[in-house]
Amino acid sequence: MSSLSSDPAQSILAAEIQQQPDIIANLLRSPHFSQVAQAVREANPQHVVIAARGTSDNAARYAQYLFGIHLGLPVALAAPSITSMYGKTIRYRDTLVIGISQSGSGTDVNQVISEAAEQGALTIGITNNPDSALGKIAGHCLPLGAGPEKSVAATKTYTTELTVLAALTAHWVNNEQMITALDGLPGWISTALTHAAAITSRAERFRFMTRCVLLGRGYNYATTFEIALKLKELTYSMAEPYSSADFRHGPKALIETDFPAIVLAPSGVVFDDMLSLITEIKGRGADLTIISDQDAALELATLPIRLPDGVPEWLSPIVTVVPGQWLAMSIAAAKGLSLDAPRGLTKVTITR
Amino acid sequence: MSSLSSDPAQSILAAEIQQQPDIIANLLRSPHFSQVAQAVREANPQHVVIAARGTSDNAARYAQYLFGIHLGLPVALAAPSITSMYGKTIRYRDTLVIGISQSGSGTDVNQVISEAAEQGALTIGITNNPDSALGKIAGHCLPLGAGPEKSVAATKTYTTELTVLAALTAHWVNNEQMITALDGLPGWISTALTHAAAITSRAERFRFMTRCVLLGRGYNYATTFEIALKLKELTYSMAEPYSSADFRHGPKALIETDFPAIVLAPSGVVFDDMLSLITEIKGRGADLTIISDQDAALELATLPIRLPDGVPEWLSPIVTVVPGQWLAMSIAAAKGLSLDAPRGLTKVTITR
Repeated sequence: MSSLSSDPAQSILAAEIQQQPDIIANLLRSPHFSQVAQAVREANPQHVVIAARGTSDNAARYAQYLFGIHLGLPVALAAPSITSMYGKTIRYRDTLVIGISQSGSGTDVNQVISEAAEQGALTIGITNNPDSALGKIAGHCLPLGAGPEKSVAATKTYTTELTVLAALTAHWVNNEQMITALDGLPGWISTALTHAAAITSRAERFRFMTRCVLLGRGYNYATTFEIALKLKELTYSMAEPYSSADFRHGPKALIETDFPAIVLAPSGVVFDDMLSLITEIKGRGADLTIISDQDAALELATLPIRLPDGVPEWLSPIVTVVPGQWLAMSIAAAKGLSLDAPRGLTKVTITR
Repeated sequence: MSSLSSDPAQSILAAEIQQQPDIIANLLRSPHFSQVAQAVREANPQHVVIAARGTSDNAARYAQYLFGIHLGLPVALAAPSITSMYGKTIRYRDTLVIGISQSGSGTDVNQVISEAAEQGALTIGITNNPDSALGKIAGHCLPLGAGPEKSVAATKTYTTELTVLAALTAHWVNNEQMITALDGLPGWISTALTHAAAITSRAERFRFMTRCVLLGRGYNYATTFEIALKLKELTYSMAEPYSSADFRHGPKALIETDFPAIVLAPSGVVFDDMLSLITEIKGRGADLTIISDQDAALELATLPIRLPDGVPEWLSPIVTVVPGQWLAMSIAAAKGLSLDAPRGLTKVTITR
């Protein structure tokens, strides 16, 4: 007998979260990645600029680490208002300019891509709607193939955006081991989702949570932003994302007894740094939800959420975010809130 | 008779906030700006990368608009952990690389500058301590000249960082009108501070505030981050910064009756967009603190904070942040908290 006000597993949102393994398996069969990667290698850009808003901006943060670590390229996140509001032209010399948008209809993002294309820069549009303005303006289009996303909170379009960026990187550096590793994604996400019911069964403990912090670093800095955005959209809680480094620079003052922290600690280069931060804030009384594959981290949590073993760090954001999506949805259900159409939001936001 | 638990105006923090007009007047007499600008023009970079943490990272956001709008340059905010944690090399071709750090001793920021200098890139260190590692590693150093900053919450080192970036831009484009405009800063900040006692007298209304949002756009996107950081450091409130564009993409769901929003709406290109957002969220019951020079915005506020007239938009972040610093300090006093040494924080944070 459930005391939840609604069963989250029956929502459209839950269905879309659970579609992710199949959609990603299908996406990975696309021939676009090797074709576009070939064009990018020939253009040989020395810099990358990415224009995106909301969830897609979080995908851009992931790209900053992917392109930085695997290709040595500095990645700038565009400030689209420089073009759309101030009417100024940015020069994109030797630059790959990528627009990321679920709908492909964000005016300000499209203005950046359009300006870059006019300058002759190599442009790529990553969108769930290849027939959109973005799909047409960009020199190359990488479709998400996620199918219609009906929930206002984006889930499958986020993980497909990340998958497109990861696959583009693997084909760009033309590394067979990386290309092969991508095929593990559907299975890892499925395994992560085997804990879905367990997460839902603990969600009521967050019934009166109004604020929390999300902590992660490196590749999963993007994941902190995306889970925080889901919590804000779905539960109307204040959820603040931080890298462990920036957190030590000030906001650590927030942590007091019982302050909720959701910490992303998958295996990888930054794991030890995350474990050290976990230990420190546990000592100060934080309430810890930890998403990790490592017992050393999980055993320090009040709510441990286990990730599958063997996920390479560079792909871990695509897996780590999924239990976070499910957790945000389950908390919204525990709070008796609408899962599929949060107040004040529309699916496509037109900004200039 | 005050019911505040301590008089904020007697704190070291208040003294440092009030030093800002004199320190900036002195800083503007520095001969460094024209010298370094000359070197930058000769190098003719096509891209800018900035490495910074905490408050200094907010100064970097301001530079993104300054260099984008006045010089057409894309600006990337570095992800220092790509070098410090993942041990990977970023290639800085045709790139000006700037490190911003109050102490000049942040290991990860210095690694970025050191790597860029080794590659032969033009590097600039902006620091309050020219004798620091950053001051020595960087090809050029622009000192803040702010004197010792004793409060843990940075105030005068933030506005001097912004002033250095604004002065560098004015001299880089070699625009006499812009160079002359800088001289207005000390007077505008002094005028903004004439409302300090009035702000303090209203601060008790925030005694039980635990969360709020900061809204701004364009040049003052940086200011939303910096005032939010002051509120987090000093009052332990959750304060979330948003551009009006990103806010419409999801977090708007947060706004319910009496939800506190602090809105930055100085005159300029983005004013109409901010006024439209103010009207929208006021209709949804937000509690509005508005920092503006325009009556049309101020009259919609529960707590209006008036800015001086005549500040050019590109310099407005250096003025707009100051009443925000004072407000954060006054709220901390109303909550009975320590103003000069918030819990859990140290002045210099070493991150790698």
